[in-house]
Amino acid sequence: MSGNSIGQLFKVTTFGESHGPALGGIVDGMPPGFELDLDALQLELDRRKPGTSRYTTARREDDVVKILSGLFEGVTTGTSIGLLIENTDQRSQDYSAIKDVFRPGHADYTYWHKYGLRDYRGGGRSSARETAIRVAAGAIAKQYLKAKFGVEIRGYLAQLGPVKLDLVDWSEVDNNPFFCADPAKLEALDEYMRQLKKDGDSVGARVNVVASGVPVGWGEPVFDRLDADIAHAMMSINAVKAVEVGDGFAVVEQRGSTHRDELRLNGFTANHAGGVLGGISSGQDINVSIALKPTSSISIAGKTITTSGEETEMITKGRHDPCVGIRAVPIAEAMLAIVLMDHFLRHRAQNADVRVDTPAIGGRHNF
Amino acid sequence: MSGNSIGQLFKVTTFGESHGPALGGIVDGMPPGFELDLDALQLELDRRKPGTSRYTTARREDDVVKILSGLFEGVTTGTSIGLLIENTDQRSQDYSAIKDVFRPGHADYTYWHKYGLRDYRGGGRSSARETAIRVAAGAIAKQYLKAKFGVEIRGYLAQLGPVKLDLVDWSEVDNNPFFCADPAKLEALDEYMRQLKKDGDSVGARVNVVASGVPVGWGEPVFDRLDADIAHAMMSINAVKAVEVGDGFAVVEQRGSTHRDELRLNGFTANHAGGVLGGISSGQDINVSIALKPTSSISIAGKTITTSGEETEMITKGRHDPCVGIRAVPIAEAMLAIVLMDHFLRHRAQNADVRVDTPAIGGRHNF
Amino acid sequence: MSGNSIGQLFKVTTFGESHGPALGGIVDGMPPGFELDLDALQLELDRRKPGTSRYTTARREDDVVKILSGLFEGVTTGTSIGLLIENTDQRSQDYSAIKDVFRPGHADYTYWHKYGLRDYRGGGRSSARETAIRVAAGAIAKQYLKAKFGVEIRGYLAQLGPVKLDLVDWSEVDNNPFFCADPAKLEALDEYMRQLKKDGDSVGARVNVVASGVPVGWGEPVFDRLDADIAHAMMSINAVKAVEVGDGFAVVEQRGSTHRDELRLNGFTANHAGGVLGGISSGQDINVSIALKPTSSISIAGKTITTSGEETEMITKGRHDPCVGIRAVPIAEAMLAIVLMDHFLRHRAQNADVRVDTPAIGGRHNF
Amino acid sequence: MSGNSIGQLFKVTTFGESHGPALGGIVDGMPPGFELDLDALQLELDRRKPGTSRYTTARREDDVVKILSGLFEGVTTGTSIGLLIENTDQRSQDYSAIKDVFRPGHADYTYWHKYGLRDYRGGGRSSARETAIRVAAGAIAKQYLKAKFGVEIRGYLAQLGPVKLDLVDWSEVDNNPFFCADPAKLEALDEYMRQLKKDGDSVGARVNVVASGVPVGWGEPVFDRLDADIAHAMMSINAVKAVEVGDGFAVVEQRGSTHRDELRLNGFTANHAGGVLGGISSGQDINVSIALKPTSSISIAGKTITTSGEETEMITKGRHDPCVGIRAVPIAEAMLAIVLMDHFLRHRAQNADVRVDTPAIGGRHNF
Repeated sequence: MSGNSIGQLFKVTTFGESHGPALGGIVDGMPPGFELDLDALQLELDRRKPGTSRYTTARREDDVVKILSGLFEGVTTGTSIGLLIENTDQRSQDYSAIKDVFRPGHADYTYWHKYGLRDYRGGGRSSARETAIRVAAGAIAKQYLKAKFGVEIRGYLAQLGPVKLDLVDWSEVDNNPFFCADPAKLEALDEYMRQLKKDGDSVGARVNVVASGVPVGWGEPVFDRLDADIAHAMMSINAVKAVEVGDGFAVVEQRGSTHRDELRLNGFTANHAGGVLGGISSGQDINVSIALKPTSSISIAGKTITTSGEETEMITKGRHDPCVGIRAVPIAEAMLAIVLMDHFLRHRAQNADVRVDTPAIGGRHNF
Repeated sequence: MSGNSIGQLFKVTTFGESHGPALGGIVDGMPPGFELDLDALQLELDRRKPGTSRYTTARREDDVVKILSGLFEGVTTGTSIGLLIENTDQRSQDYSAIKDVFRPGHADYTYWHKYGLRDYRGGGRSSARETAIRVAAGAIAKQYLKAKFGVEIRGYLAQLGPVKLDLVDWSEVDNNPFFCADPAKLEALDEYMRQLKKDGDSVGARVNVVASGVPVGWGEPVFDRLDADIAHAMMSINAVKAVEVGDGFAVVEQRGSTHRDELRLNGFTANHAGGVLGGISSGQDINVSIALKPTSSISIAGKTITTSGEETEMITKGRHDPCVGIRAVPIAEAMLAIVLMDHFLRHRAQNADVRVDTPAIGGRHNF
Repeated sequence: MSGNSIGQLFKVTTFGESHGPALGGIVDGMPPGFELDLDALQLELDRRKPGTSRYTTARREDDVVKILSGLFEGVTTGTSIGLLIENTDQRSQDYSAIKDVFRPGHADYTYWHKYGLRDYRGGGRSSARETAIRVAAGAIAKQYLKAKFGVEIRGYLAQLGPVKLDLVDWSEVDNNPFFCADPAKLEALDEYMRQLKKDGDSVGARVNVVASGVPVGWGEPVFDRLDADIAHAMMSINAVKAVEVGDGFAVVEQRGSTHRDELRLNGFTANHAGGVLGGISSGQDINVSIALKPTSSISIAGKTITTSGEETEMITKGRHDPCVGIRAVPIAEAMLAIVLMDHFLRHRAQNADVRVDTPAIGGRHNF
Repeated sequence: MSGNSIGQLFKVTTFGESHGPALGGIVDGMPPGFELDLDALQLELDRRKPGTSRYTTARREDDVVKILSGLFEGVTTGTSIGLLIENTDQRSQDYSAIKDVFRPGHADYTYWHKYGLRDYRGGGRSSARETAIRVAAGAIAKQYLKAKFGVEIRGYLAQLGPVKLDLVDWSEVDNNPFFCADPAKLEALDEYMRQLKKDGDSVGARVNVVASGVPVGWGEPVFDRLDADIAHAMMSINAVKAVEVGDGFAVVEQRGSTHRDELRLNGFTANHAGGVLGGISSGQDINVSIALKPTSSISIAGKTITTSGEETEMITKGRHDPCVGIRAVPIAEAMLAIVLMDHFLRHRAQNADVRVDTPAIGGRHNF
């Protein structure tokens, strides 16, 4: 119950600190007989890994994931999959200065009071470095859902500080260091980030994730709605402060006659719901949007207190992303993949025998 | 895994359909020796119950909750608590017309494809009627947290369609049928609702919930962060489409130097984080905001299809709230109470021995 | 985590005290579209209910189970099933004498220390009366497994004190109040029980349960082996002190050349394993045997202490079974049904796509 | 739900195949601030490891466990603990012969039908090699329970084939390769094993485990009784076919007047119950006994079938223990430690505030 697991049937459990010897995880519940593409899996990790551009932390990690079990002759066996990523660039000497000081905006203060001690090297367990394992686990889910159902899970940076970014072209997302699908805005982004670094400050971001091709019927009523589990998974990503599904907060000002998506035989007339009705996937695109706060590790001095109860000021040195939201794109994709995979298995457990004559509108089938 | 439970250590499991004989639930994990105030519990249900004003459904339910176990001589015993609310005003004849038609914007279509059949009487399990049991279970948590820690969990309507409502006075919330803490706006609300009913339409809403007095240290790192579990619980409420903690989506445009809450010995200098740092409560107010979509049950005709695959139009008759967001206030409070209670127990299980010399700023203690 | 639930995908949660107003439970995860035979379900409860013969407690309970949800037009809907049995013959005045005394051999002492208080009326939650709901939930699983796979789950009394009972004829089991499949021994049983009552004493028993027709492949490796979950479920029945699968303790003196069941195309050559290999069903009969202790509620005085720390003696008055093992037969069947149903769903979630060309020996198929 | 986890609050999740690169696991829920004795932890692994005598498999594994997280400056941090043991002596060439044949008495046949494929190298995930991680996780629990409560968890070989072994002297257990507490029988054991090897056969065993010093009050009523969870944990060990708590199967012939343990102020008068009453620890010794079947890997030819459906005969070559029961002693201790640790945390979560004036008899306190 200490919260290092997610999922019920596709269950991911992780361990690892920012400056420990390694990160790792276990994926339990993967169906057997699936040929895993290890290169594609590593590629997802490369998308998240630090040190790829001047907009992210200078820490260099290869983030090579090793699969230690659950795979035999290239194929999943149905037993638990052990994942391991060794930390290679820890430099823990950087962190001794903050040993007795709570960095403002960080988890230092809350960990200290919760546990009575903390691994102060780079935030220990509270560092976003743990998300590397999420990406590895999510990549397994992603591959499976793509191969079996044609489900496509993709994300992009929708806003960075004041710069709003449209979804112009999915194929552009991996062509720039911003996961930006709006190539006309790249220069503005670059300029904004340059100034931000000069200011020694950081900024927030909005990330959108879309799952296309999800069959109708995934998700459980009442507490474990598909959207509730998506909200949980997204809010569990470091720095996320808000989650929307479909129209999100815009529904506050909508009327029912506008919001409700009508049904025609060739599909729904709109997708205000974001692909989820009553907590269950409708077959439409699942649209999720999240807000990530600016990192608190900046080179502008901040007021704080020490563990011995004195007021002080501090500057967070070290190597930090000025906008943690950027690298959140592959993480958010991974989390959505994990939730969908879990709900596919949960749906199948109970409802594998269900046959419905009524055709799913828009051509999506049940399983 | 069919999703009718929430919580790990304070676990609430529910059953019941809109038009079945009864709703019920089981609360497992309640500490023993707590004197439950049954009147206060019933009062929470009265706040949620339908038929209290012309702004909510005309269905009349007394929503009297019976406690069938787990209580002995007025005191909790530590064993599971059985809850039962009988349905008295079902009128299931109202619903036969929609038997073979999917109401647009409802769960009819997704339930049908998931289960191959559906209880079409008032939405069956997908009806918001199930939330009555959530309120009963949440009331138990609320009472305990109040008595033991002085935690106060309160909500209010923050926006109804275009009408924005401030938190002017907590004590006004229960003096009007809108859970409105901004008495100057009551007339505007009344007028808006009158017109809405005339239009036969519905509207969305924003609800804010605040927990004050939560000790520092509740919440688990990584996946089961306090805010992640709050997001899950809130998004599991019918019609909720978005969740924010603290500044929420506003963080997208914030800089780190603004967002991070600095620490002084007499408390944090601000609360942009909304009371959660690294997924763990900081001792500050926990601020949550949610968006509820307009109900799709309106008297304006909508396009849809039948179970046999024909296009048609329909009007949703029956007795419906024009703004389901209003009655969501006590439900959201209940969900927050359940999550906090669960995390208190989870925290205590692992960390009951932790003693920290550093005083919690702002005067909040660890347990 | 307070232990009132069993099962992961077919999850049963219960509540209720011996002398409270009602017992109840929730079955979550039942597949939709199954026509439940309510008479057959009630019949299982009748098999367990007290007052049916002079060999069981004189307490009279009709044990009529009401299904409050999850059923629509006679068919399961896939949503949670609410179960309720009202207590009608509580007579709580019987129990005031034992309020401050710990009955030896009972849970009084441990409940008192765990919870700091106890519902002393008939043992409260620790009474075997709660097993009525297990039988109701198990009956649902039993019906489903029978209808879908032809699985037959049957139990019988294998020993009562010194009287050993063979499995001579399954069809005799429900023809006598002992669940005895060995009609030649009925007279001996009767005589033994008569003397036991005269002595004011009680006696232990052995119960055997067999599941036939279980497909190969159910059960999960490592911790949640089918036999491990069976052991858990059986040991969770009041008064059970030991569990065997297959040859059980006899394996201690066996050699590998004897114990291992060899494989031929027409089936295994023997069933020492009891139908489980590596924690997974082999398609053979699953054979389980359990030992139930003699009830401690007897009319022979016993030494004990009071809650205020004084030594004393007491006689347990009230209405008690002289051999609780007898009525355990339908309970053990129910528990086996619940475990098998749960593992069927767990297996299907992960492995629904698996197709094996090799025929299962003895003619059993995978799903 | 694929069963690679055990425990609710002290949760152990494992991975790894007999012939994969490594075994590993994650311990989630460990209280923070505990100074782990890594040498003592390694010692437990050494007790289990193969190759220590001529009575166990000739496979040589150092079984050096690495702790990859959750430990900072020698002290637990409260975050998840990553464990890793590299396989060094795999020799997978030994196993190619059995690729298409189901070894009788093994999990080959059931894995094949469950998953549609299997890692045939040494049994893959079904190999008892995975228990190394259980021992590592159990050692953490053992150390904590010893340090905090003085709980002592010890096991011994109670019978090997026909040779019965008494508990004569705990201190002898680690002085011989049999975990035998009855030194007078060592010669007989040696002789029996010598003959067994000559015969190319294997034999079953009985192992007893005792936990002393467990406080009163651990365990949950109804399904998750302490003894039910012990039964689950024990039966999850490879080759275990039966579990007893306290008098076990002997209760079948006992009378209530004999079985019930009476209470005196200086303790219970006996311990027929084995330290558990109503599923909750009573403060007495917890006595558990298990039966382990003889390994099916013997050099006597056995009848079987192939994956393509032909009858054949085979001899299981490779390096195998003639009595797997021997090395089960440290594994059973580890499982008991894991269950107790889990129930301590579960008890504390709900009942940390309970104060009972009545002194626990025999001097054991509540927490």
